[in-house]
Amino acid sequence: MKLEMICTGEEVLSGQIVDTNAAWFASTMMEHGIEIQRRVTVGDRLEDLIAVFQERSLHADVILVNGGLGPTSDDMSAEAMAKAKGESLVENSEWRQRLEDWFTRNNREMPVSNLKQAMLPVSAVMVDNPVGTACGFRVKLNRAWLFFTPGVPFELKHMVKEQFIPFIRDEFNLDAKVALKKLLTIGHGESALADKIEPLELPEGITIGYRSSMPHIEIKIFARGEKAIALLPRVAGHIKMVLGTAVVAEDKATLAEEIHFRLLNSGLTLSAAESCTGGMITSQLVDFPGSSSYLQHGLVTYSNESKVRVLGVNPATLDDHGAVSIPTVEEMAKGARAILDSDFALATSGIAGPDGGTEDKPVGTVAIALATRSGVYSQMIKLPRRSRDLVRSLSAAVAYDMLRRELLSEAVIVDYQSIGRFSK
Amino acid sequence: MKLEMICTGEEVLSGQIVDTNAAWFASTMMEHGIEIQRRVTVGDRLEDLIAVFQERSLHADVILVNGGLGPTSDDMSAEAMAKAKGESLVENSEWRQRLEDWFTRNNREMPVSNLKQAMLPVSAVMVDNPVGTACGFRVKLNRAWLFFTPGVPFELKHMVKEQFIPFIRDEFNLDAKVALKKLLTIGHGESALADKIEPLELPEGITIGYRSSMPHIEIKIFARGEKAIALLPRVAGHIKMVLGTAVVAEDKATLAEEIHFRLLNSGLTLSAAESCTGGMITSQLVDFPGSSSYLQHGLVTYSNESKVRVLGVNPATLDDHGAVSIPTVEEMAKGARAILDSDFALATSGIAGPDGGTEDKPVGTVAIALATRSGVYSQMIKLPRRSRDLVRSLSAAVAYDMLRRELLSEAVIVDYQSIGRFSK
Repeated sequence: MKLEMICTGEEVLSGQIVDTNAAWFASTMMEHGIEIQRRVTVGDRLEDLIAVFQERSLHADVILVNGGLGPTSDDMSAEAMAKAKGESLVENSEWRQRLEDWFTRNNREMPVSNLKQAMLPVSAVMVDNPVGTACGFRVKLNRAWLFFTPGVPFELKHMVKEQFIPFIRDEFNLDAKVALKKLLTIGHGESALADKIEPLELPEGITIGYRSSMPHIEIKIFARGEKAIALLPRVAGHIKMVLGTAVVAEDKATLAEEIHFRLLNSGLTLSAAESCTGGMITSQLVDFPGSSSYLQHGLVTYSNESKVRVLGVNPATLDDHGAVSIPTVEEMAKGARAILDSDFALATSGIAGPDGGTEDKPVGTVAIALATRSGVYSQMIKLPRRSRDLVRSLSAAVAYDMLRRELLSEAVIVDYQSIGRFSK
Repeated sequence: MKLEMICTGEEVLSGQIVDTNAAWFASTMMEHGIEIQRRVTVGDRLEDLIAVFQERSLHADVILVNGGLGPTSDDMSAEAMAKAKGESLVENSEWRQRLEDWFTRNNREMPVSNLKQAMLPVSAVMVDNPVGTACGFRVKLNRAWLFFTPGVPFELKHMVKEQFIPFIRDEFNLDAKVALKKLLTIGHGESALADKIEPLELPEGITIGYRSSMPHIEIKIFARGEKAIALLPRVAGHIKMVLGTAVVAEDKATLAEEIHFRLLNSGLTLSAAESCTGGMITSQLVDFPGSSSYLQHGLVTYSNESKVRVLGVNPATLDDHGAVSIPTVEEMAKGARAILDSDFALATSGIAGPDGGTEDKPVGTVAIALATRSGVYSQMIKLPRRSRDLVRSLSAAVAYDMLRRELLSEAVIVDYQSIGRFSK
C-alpha cells in the first residue's frame, strides 16, 4: 500500500505555523508499521488543490488530506475534490442535522457559512467527526482513496485513530501486529548509541529508530509480527544492558516525566535551588498536574546575595571556592532541603555561556548536588561546545538522573559517555 | 516567478523531526515578498528523488532543495539530480581543496566518505557554504533552477540569506523593496484582532499577516514598494492605536525578550516569586545571556510553608484569604523584593488546573502582583477554558506586561479583551 499525505493551508505553506500535524501523522503511522512515501503541501488556491488531488491520485493508494474543511471562504478541500473528480457537491443531510444539533447544544444560532461544512462531493463516503463541526469524508479517484481530515490537531488525531487506521487496516488487509518500546537516553550522541546497537543481531521483525529531542535521544524499538512482539521485552532488556547508564527511562518522553511519576503519590518531597538552570528543573515538573503534591519550592538563586540570604550559603564558601564549585552547590542543596525539611533537594550552579567562562572553569562547567536526609552527593561536569540552552537542559537532566538513581537505590553519580567530569 | 521547495530526508518525512527548515524558509521568503507555491517532502529513496526533481522542474521556475548533501550513504541529492538530468557526477576540485583544508584546520584526517561531498553534477554551478562541509550547487533542468542547500538549519539559513536570495533577485529581476514591521500582542484572540484591523483601509502595497505562538499573537505588517515602505511607520502606528492594550512589543518575539532588553544595562534589578507559573517568569528571562545582570532571584514557592518561610508571607493571610488571593500575592511580591532590596518583584499565585478549582475560584483564577520601591500593584484575572500550560504562560505574560508598563510609566493594570478580571 502506497500512502501519501497532502497538507493544505496558506498558513502551513507560508511557514506561519510549523506543520506539527504532518510530523505527528507520519510518526503515528510509523508506530503502526506504515511508511509515508511523499508529502505535498499546498496553499488555499483552488486550482492548486485540484491539480494535486488529480496528480497524486495516479500514484498513491491512500492519501490523507489535512485541512480545508472549515466554514470560511478559504476552506475549499471539498469543492476542489468535487472539481477534481468532475462531480458536484451535495448536502449531506446527516451532517447538516449534526451541525444544527451542535449549535443548539451550545446555545448559538448556526451562521449560514457553517452550512458549507455539510456539502460533500456526490461520491463521498462521510467519515464521522464526533469532536468538531468539520465533516470528514473519503473519495475514490483513479487508484487512490483520498481521506479528508480537519486541520485542528485534536480533531485530526481523533479521526486518524478512530477512523483512518481502521479503514486502511480493513481496506488493505494490513497486519495489525505491531508493538513499540521506547527507551529514553541522555549523555550519549546518536552515533555513539548507534555504534553500540548496530552490531547487535536483532531478530527478524525488530527495527530501531532514533529521535533526537535534546537533551534526550529516544530509541524506538519496533516489533512487527507476533514472533517479534513476543521477543520485544528481551530485545529491549538486552539493548538497555548494552547502553548502560545512557538509558534513563522507558516509555516516557522526558526525564522530568519519569521523576514526576516516581514522586507522585510517593509521599516524598522535593525542593530545588537552581542557578544556571534558571528554574528549568522546577518548571519542567510544574508542567505536570499534581506536581504540587511533592514539589515544595524551587529557588532560583541567580545572584550570590540570594544564595546567602535565601539558601544560607556561607559567604566564605563563595569567597574561597566561587559560585560554581562543589562546596557552594552542596551548601545550596543542603540549604534548600533544610528550609522545609524536604526529603530531597537538587542544586545547580554553572556557567551556561556564551560569556563568563575562565581558564579553570570554562563555559559549560556545572556543579550539581543532591541533598538527602542522610547526606549530599555532588559532581562538577564539563559540557564544552554546547549552546547555552543545551548546557542548561543537560544539567537539569543530569540532576534529575541523580535523583532518579537515588530513588532506585542505585549509584547516584555515574559516567555518561559524552559528559566529562572534574575530579574532586 | 514560481517558487517551490523540495524537502528531503527520511527523518523529516517520517516525522522524527518537525520540519522547521520548511517553515523558516517559507516565512523568510514571505518577508521578502515572495510566496512559495508548493512544498514536496520525500524520503531518501533515489528513484523518489529523481522523479520529484523531474516532475517539479516542469512546473516551477526555482526550486529550493533542502537536505541530502551530507557524507553518508543516505545523502543522495547530487546523485539523484545528475540522474534526473541524465549526466554524470564529477569532482569539484575547488570544494575538495576546501574539505581538505577544513579537516586540516580541525586536526582531523578526512574520512574517505567526505570526498563524496565534492561530487557535483557536470552542469552544476557551485554555491559557497563557508560554514559547513556540504557544498551547495544549482542546476538548470527544464524550466527550473534547482538550488541545493544543506539540511543543517544554521547552514541553510546562511546559504539562503547570502546566496539564494541574491541569486533569485538577480535572475528574476525582483523588486527588492520590501519592509516588515512586527507587532506582538497578548490577550486578544486572532479573530478579535482581525475584526479591528480588517475594517482599516490600508494603503496599496501594505498587507497583514498573523502568526499565533501562544500566549502571543504576532501581527506582521508587510510593505511592498517604496511608497508603501514610506507609509509603514504611520500604518503601524495607526494599527497600534486601534489595538490599544493588545500590543505589548514591536519587533520582538516574546514579552520576555522585551523585558530582557528593557532591563539589560538599565541598572535596575528584578526578583520573582512564582507559584502557578512555576518558574516560567524566571526561566524565560534566564534564556537570554546577560540576564544575571538584573535578575536577582526567582523563588518558586509552590507550597504554603515555602511562602511563609522563604517569602515571609503572614500565615494569617493564607488562612484568611487563601493562597490564591490578592493579599497573599501582594505579600509574596513584597517579600521577594525585600530579601535583596530589588527594584521590582513579580509574584503569581493561581489555579492552573486541570484540578484544584472551587466555585469561588475556578481553574484559571490567577492573582498577580508587582512590587516596586514605592508600592504594590495587583490584580486577580480569570482564564477559564484554557489548558494548564496556557493559564501559566498567559499569567506570566500579564505579569511581564505589568512590569513593562511600569517601566514606561504607564497605567500598570489595564483590560485585555479576552482576559477577565475579578473586582477587588
